[in-house]
Amino acid sequence: MSDAYGALRDDVLAANLAIVRAGLVALTFGNVSAVDRDAGVMAIKPSGVAYDELTAEAIVVLELESGATVAGEARPSSDTPTHRVLYRAFPDVGGVVHTHSPYATAWAQACRELPCYGTTHADHFDGPVPVTRRLEPAEIAGDYERRTGEAIVEAFAQLELDPLERPAALVAGHGPFAWGPDVAQAVETAVALEAVAAAAFRTELLRPDAEPIDADLRRRHFRRKHGDAAYYGQAG
Amino acid sequence: MSDAYGALRDDVLAANLAIVRAGLVALTFGNVSAVDRDAGVMAIKPSGVAYDELTAEAIVVLELESGATVAGEARPSSDTPTHRVLYRAFPDVGGVVHTHSPYATAWAQACRELPCYGTTHADHFDGPVPVTRRLEPAEIAGDYERRTGEAIVEAFAQLELDPLERPAALVAGHGPFAWGPDVAQAVETAVALEAVAAAAFRTELLRPDAEPIDADLRRRHFRRKHGDAAYYGQAG
Amino acid sequence: MSDAYGALRDDVLAANLAIVRAGLVALTFGNVSAVDRDAGVMAIKPSGVAYDELTAEAIVVLELESGATVAGEARPSSDTPTHRVLYRAFPDVGGVVHTHSPYATAWAQACRELPCYGTTHADHFDGPVPVTRRLEPAEIAGDYERRTGEAIVEAFAQLELDPLERPAALVAGHGPFAWGPDVAQAVETAVALEAVAAAAFRTELLRPDAEPIDADLRRRHFRRKHGDAAYYGQAG
Amino acid sequence: MSDAYGALRDDVLAANLAIVRAGLVALTFGNVSAVDRDAGVMAIKPSGVAYDELTAEAIVVLELESGATVAGEARPSSDTPTHRVLYRAFPDVGGVVHTHSPYATAWAQACRELPCYGTTHADHFDGPVPVTRRLEPAEIAGDYERRTGEAIVEAFAQLELDPLERPAALVAGHGPFAWGPDVAQAVETAVALEAVAAAAFRTELLRPDAEPIDADLRRRHFRRKHGDAAYYGQAG
Repeated sequence: MSDAYGALRDDVLAANLAIVRAGLVALTFGNVSAVDRDAGVMAIKPSGVAYDELTAEAIVVLELESGATVAGEARPSSDTPTHRVLYRAFPDVGGVVHTHSPYATAWAQACRELPCYGTTHADHFDGPVPVTRRLEPAEIAGDYERRTGEAIVEAFAQLELDPLERPAALVAGHGPFAWGPDVAQAVETAVALEAVAAAAFRTELLRPDAEPIDADLRRRHFRRKHGDAAYYGQAG
Repeated sequence: MSDAYGALRDDVLAANLAIVRAGLVALTFGNVSAVDRDAGVMAIKPSGVAYDELTAEAIVVLELESGATVAGEARPSSDTPTHRVLYRAFPDVGGVVHTHSPYATAWAQACRELPCYGTTHADHFDGPVPVTRRLEPAEIAGDYERRTGEAIVEAFAQLELDPLERPAALVAGHGPFAWGPDVAQAVETAVALEAVAAAAFRTELLRPDAEPIDADLRRRHFRRKHGDAAYYGQAG
Repeated sequence: MSDAYGALRDDVLAANLAIVRAGLVALTFGNVSAVDRDAGVMAIKPSGVAYDELTAEAIVVLELESGATVAGEARPSSDTPTHRVLYRAFPDVGGVVHTHSPYATAWAQACRELPCYGTTHADHFDGPVPVTRRLEPAEIAGDYERRTGEAIVEAFAQLELDPLERPAALVAGHGPFAWGPDVAQAVETAVALEAVAAAAFRTELLRPDAEPIDADLRRRHFRRKHGDAAYYGQAG
Repeated sequence: MSDAYGALRDDVLAANLAIVRAGLVALTFGNVSAVDRDAGVMAIKPSGVAYDELTAEAIVVLELESGATVAGEARPSSDTPTHRVLYRAFPDVGGVVHTHSPYATAWAQACRELPCYGTTHADHFDGPVPVTRRLEPAEIAGDYERRTGEAIVEAFAQLELDPLERPAALVAGHGPFAWGPDVAQAVETAVALEAVAAAAFRTELLRPDAEPIDADLRRRHFRRKHGDAAYYGQAG
């Protein structure tokens, strides 16, 4: 697109289609957003639109501060307030992915954090992926989607987690949110989350008393891929 | 098609092919029907025909009241009497989908209702998806397929359920039937039912004492998508 | 093919490719054969040939009585003696399919017969699918593949089963063999067996004390599709 | 490619793409290498490169003895030291495959060896697939990837296993490594390992006290396909 938010909307369109190709969504469940911190806006999928009809023009752009729509005709995803809370609370996050991917959703429905049983997990998350508390009736009755985001932020505050070292959360009784420094990395994290959620499910069935990997091994793997001492991938 | 029932048959053909694409059927298991209330007819897949040989002309049209065929050369699906009972008992239903989809069938074979463990479920069903009682030998020996439909209707009556708030049932030892105000929505519900049946299966394996989500949260999600106060999707 | 066994080899080629398309095989595991009773020959896949290199010419034809090859350059499947035993013991069988399909193999490895938990099963098998006893060391050391076939025949004799009412067996510690009056129906049965093996696996995990469906219901479904009173599908 | 290592790099490229097609990898997890014993070099996938951007030129060639790169601009896979240890310790191995394939990884995360529950397993492995011990903190802090390879070699030494009779290992808390006399057979073994890991998982869920197949049957199947008396497949 060639409008002021063209690149942002193109990125968000591509990311929304990427989560479908990766098998993370069925029907119209799921939505991806990205933020432009300089412009103070975020762009997100419109609500309930079929993925095969999605165009860059249909992507909704709104002000991060006020939530007011600045571009796009459609109603934004009903989960928009959750995304907004995450962008405002986590200043280094550039993209957010919400799916109902099969195994991550099962952990969320079981109201369980996802333990770090292996190095695939440690390559992406420097510890268990946290689960939120269940919302109170008053929170559900009110500004529910905003409260969902606040429950994620609350979990990270209580556990003193760095959102880029633990770039996902499981919303109790609902499903996963994943994020990253940009929207492409948020999509990659959402894909990895589903893979490790499936592996952890099978690990527990094979060994009910399975134990997380040692913190040394976890940290070694996370640091192979993230931070100053990373030696995985090609130098930038 | 351009005959009197052309549009109805086209819709039924498209819906039968959609459940195959969605991975809900293997071999020739499964059938979809739609109703035209004004004309007093329903249209359904012929019995035991391979999906890749199915044409609109092969779709059988029959009178809702008498069951008599009014268009189509083929024998209708052997499950036709079940569909007819549902249309006659549930006046707001416009389409019915029967599959042997993998996870929903497992719940039906376990003779268990499907609990509402998460918001994906609540987006489509305002509570657990009910399971029928097992049929008596006399019912099986007689007009078996009609009795199957009646067992579904009986379950809804006993539990005092609204068929559009709980648009599916699991037939004990058999498999799922799903429906909706029109056949496209019935297909969507059948797809969602399989997804939530799989998620619930995994939820219980991760946490044998898993609990359904709170009624407040369930109702909030169902109402986001259904009824006057819906705010999911684009305004009609 | 236009040689004396051209139609038979074409059928066997098509059936071998069909089980790959249906997702029943990985690598070169699995083989399908068909018999021509009048000519006294059977045709089977060559041993260890990649499915995407398989041609009708590569299909091996051999005498049912002697096992001697009458057409084809290649060595026949190492499981050929098992197929031969089945054709000779079960005179109404026209095609045999052997796979290592994922769920049916798990039941075979668990040395368990497959219970009839639902109507999908009953549409194809009029009761549980039997499992063989484990072979004795002397049987394994000797003419092992022939003994495998004899163990299937022995199970059917002991349980007094009709091979066309129960058209499959699970070989303990090995995997499934399925068959039918012709090779196309044998393939269909192999596909159905895998589907019901998966559903039964999930049924037991959802309900460890799950019970088979009533014999009345099972028989009703089997008879809908098989025998003189069948009313499923289109009249022949 | 037409350079000195062209055939080797082409083989390694093809094998890396084959494990993606076989569904063994997600994202950039996984890497395949091959060795040229005469030239004293091994070739391996570059680190963190997307599979759909991989070319033969990007494959890195390095000296088996020193580990020094002799061809290729990119940084080799971070798991390269593990591959090198295996080639140096196991002189008959020609190719090594590392994946995070779903079921094999679950066994590795459960820190369990993979039991031989059936003939599919026995066709490829003449006994259980061993699991390594967990590494000590000092090993993780130091030359971690080399230590991973040494833990595999240590397990084979302690159990007195022949690496070509048991051509894979599960690295505790990490995932599978598979190998073979050449890289194509290493890929085939990695595919088979995932299939038998899935089947064994389901076997245990169906029967918690499942027992491995008898050693006679296991050996018979392994010998059908390997060694002087093999009679599976077409004579070379």
